[in-house]
Amino acid sequence: MKNIKVIGFDADDTLWVNEPYFREAEQTFAGMLGEYAGREEIFRSLYETEIRNISLYGYGIKGFTLSMIETALHVSGNRIGADKLQDILRLGKNMLSLPVRLLDGVEETLRQLHDTGRFRLVLATKGDLTDQYRKIRESGLESYFHRIEIMSYKNEAEYAELIKTLDIQPDEFLMIGNSLRSDILPVAGLGGKCIHIPYEIIWIHEESAAPVDYPGFHRIGSIGEVVKILA
Amino acid sequence: MKNIKVIGFDADDTLWVNEPYFREAEQTFAGMLGEYAGREEIFRSLYETEIRNISLYGYGIKGFTLSMIETALHVSGNRIGADKLQDILRLGKNMLSLPVRLLDGVEETLRQLHDTGRFRLVLATKGDLTDQYRKIRESGLESYFHRIEIMSYKNEAEYAELIKTLDIQPDEFLMIGNSLRSDILPVAGLGGKCIHIPYEIIWIHEESAAPVDYPGFHRIGSIGEVVKILA
Repeated sequence: MKNIKVIGFDADDTLWVNEPYFREAEQTFAGMLGEYAGREEIFRSLYETEIRNISLYGYGIKGFTLSMIETALHVSGNRIGADKLQDILRLGKNMLSLPVRLLDGVEETLRQLHDTGRFRLVLATKGDLTDQYRKIRESGLESYFHRIEIMSYKNEAEYAELIKTLDIQPDEFLMIGNSLRSDILPVAGLGGKCIHIPYEIIWIHEESAAPVDYPGFHRIGSIGEVVKILA
Repeated sequence: MKNIKVIGFDADDTLWVNEPYFREAEQTFAGMLGEYAGREEIFRSLYETEIRNISLYGYGIKGFTLSMIETALHVSGNRIGADKLQDILRLGKNMLSLPVRLLDGVEETLRQLHDTGRFRLVLATKGDLTDQYRKIRESGLESYFHRIEIMSYKNEAEYAELIKTLDIQPDEFLMIGNSLRSDILPVAGLGGKCIHIPYEIIWIHEESAAPVDYPGFHRIGSIGEVVKILA
């Protein structure tokens, strides 16, 4: 990995815990609707609703909450009670207040990369703007980053724009993240470099069957290995 | 107005219609709840809910929709029917699909400023990320802007960060917008320059009683006057 000027870090499930919070919320949600349908049906219906709504809602907890409400109305055949809807609103708000739990090795790695002075570090994430900024603030990691970029879809067009405004060539950009779909494939498509760090669980929407194998691509087990690769 | 290197433009109700869409939605919403309370009470309850939720939800239509649902449950004493909740979800989705209507003189002004080559133009707005990007795309104005910045709260700290990353001094930044609270006061507080263009209606939360009067501040009636001020 040579000539890298900027390192982009995904945030959710790369720097801190995220997906497990959604999984817990889904379990709680399914529990609320237990009288109307089985868990698997509820999970499937919620996922279908989320995907259908993504073009309007984008990513994040607010859209997830709205999709839970829509799913609850659907699954219950409009019989869901107001008290349950209150519970769903509360569940969503609770997710927006959960503590930021850094993954192992994150702070140490960012500090080491930052202190070399060789790279500009950029945080590149998607989701609700307000919520992501809250998490960045609470993470205590803000000062390591030259720039914070909250993106809408993390597709090739958005990465191309980011790389352009960073005033670098695509092959001077390294993206590090847990999602093939959002962190790796679009950057690879632009000729950038990538390090994939799979996380223990991943939202099915973020998975990708496309095999990735090209020079400039690494897959590692934990963020602590990044410094060695770049040494 | 001398030495200006970057001009920031607010978007909602500065470049295109926004607040009237919220007002129409509020009227529709109040109509749905007519059997439970009077219009004024519904408007007040909705506003209180929105303000209470801003620290969690931030700005934008998704948070507004969640606040409508919360208000509907509250105002109806949990008697609101599922069909009405469906209507509220639909109302929110409809807002996320409304056409972008440019205000008079916007395109001409941006083109003239852009073509002088004297300024970098920045779009600086807040709200839901996905929704704002959709509107920017549909507006046809994207190519005039050096940079698009979707901010969370448009407070002094966020403007200071923006000015820093633009690599300019505060007094080289001019902000143009309709909201004293979000576009003018924070930039004035940093020593930037401001042009206030009041729009016909404004959300009460965006108003400010603070008088603004200092060199580097202008108030004008329409965006068409900007070019003359900067000539």
